[in-house]
Amino acid sequence: MKGSLTIVGLGPGAPELITPAVTDALKDSTDIVGYSKYIERVKDASGKSFHPSDNREEIDRAELSINLALQGKKVVVVSSGDPGVFAMASAIFEVVDKKNISIDDLSIVVLPGITALLAASARLGAPIGHDFCVINLSDNLKSWDILKSRVIAAAKADFVIAFYNPRSKSRKNQLSEIYNVLRKNCKSDRIVIYANSISTESEAVFETTLSEADASSVSMKTLVIIGSSRTKKIRNTGYIYTPRYSGVEKN
Amino acid sequence: MKGSLTIVGLGPGAPELITPAVTDALKDSTDIVGYSKYIERVKDASGKSFHPSDNREEIDRAELSINLALQGKKVVVVSSGDPGVFAMASAIFEVVDKKNISIDDLSIVVLPGITALLAASARLGAPIGHDFCVINLSDNLKSWDILKSRVIAAAKADFVIAFYNPRSKSRKNQLSEIYNVLRKNCKSDRIVIYANSISTESEAVFETTLSEADASSVSMKTLVIIGSSRTKKIRNTGYIYTPRYSGVEKN
Repeated sequence: MKGSLTIVGLGPGAPELITPAVTDALKDSTDIVGYSKYIERVKDASGKSFHPSDNREEIDRAELSINLALQGKKVVVVSSGDPGVFAMASAIFEVVDKKNISIDDLSIVVLPGITALLAASARLGAPIGHDFCVINLSDNLKSWDILKSRVIAAAKADFVIAFYNPRSKSRKNQLSEIYNVLRKNCKSDRIVIYANSISTESEAVFETTLSEADASSVSMKTLVIIGSSRTKKIRNTGYIYTPRYSGVEKN
Repeated sequence: MKGSLTIVGLGPGAPELITPAVTDALKDSTDIVGYSKYIERVKDASGKSFHPSDNREEIDRAELSINLALQGKKVVVVSSGDPGVFAMASAIFEVVDKKNISIDDLSIVVLPGITALLAASARLGAPIGHDFCVINLSDNLKSWDILKSRVIAAAKADFVIAFYNPRSKSRKNQLSEIYNVLRKNCKSDRIVIYANSISTESEAVFETTLSEADASSVSMKTLVIIGSSRTKKIRNTGYIYTPRYSGVEKN
């Protein structure tokens, strides 16, 4: 029997933010692979083989899921958020590429999910109502020079900037160094938002400014959003939004 | 009775990509407001008042939905994709801001959806597996100079770049001018993807390179993705992905 590999996004946490397409794929599966914390979220599915693993073993997990599918299993790989945004999809295609796996041997489907940035944006108002960029800070293979130049370019272009995985064990001071880079390139009143575990019981949102922002209060799971020059908070309501037009830069 | 205003994302088109949270909000509503094509997608809901409008009347639609909610209606505003990504959320908060509406008068909730970029990414493989930016080309209030400098910054930073609304009635040659800007700043073999109506019956994906890319074949609804220097197509499978690491730029 030909197996299948479906890479799915479980969204930010709340069950009502999981798409029916993902729910159906989980029901149809024989084997579910993923970081143990994400496996916990689908543990009430019965009659499945669960394959939990450590968060950092992405390539091992990709190889396991491909091997199970090649053995004829109906494998679902679970990611938090969206599988294509700094999650399992890229790791799996890296392995498919390296091992020269043919489409005739293995059918792969990716099912999108609500990534953390969309969940945070909805909770806050409309902070990404205009052009934005998304940067992963967990990547140990990205040099500080590349990261710094990317952050400067994003600031000069006046993007709203979202940082995923802002705290890395190997680079504890990275985010505060990034704040220093941003302070040289943006006005100090830029809105900075920390969004944690949106749509779950431990949801927490914290708002500050670039001049006041303290990198030590973020965790690996925090999503950090830096407003553009036009991002603003609405008086009396607390909603944060970026107007659809951009006008003239006022860095 | 106090009304409510819920701004929801219907995702890219397939019903199985609409979250249960959005489905529930539609069920609970009395009034549904939106661009007529999006209203069509929820027309089988019975006992609702539908308020379809033209696509470009965003501020009128925002004012209508706020007024209905202030009258005590349970209003849902429908957007395609995600409401916070170049859709209705920002327009509504602009009106809330301008009219000084207090949170005591009106409760507003935004429910996220699968935006076109996540749907296209899933269909292609993992093209946004590394840092990316998202630019709206429909905005008539953004000057060509700002747009050009933003595109140059994005290319120099080696982001994957996604363009929403790439064709504008008022600027028919804009995208081909952007390609010329990119050709000066990137290698000519950059992967360029046109993704149309992903997850619907008229879904179509077209792949080319920056040197060959022809802007005349995109429509207003096409999502255009420009790969980073590392985005690649996997031999024998057709999947497109961007590796998770970035290494050294090779513009």
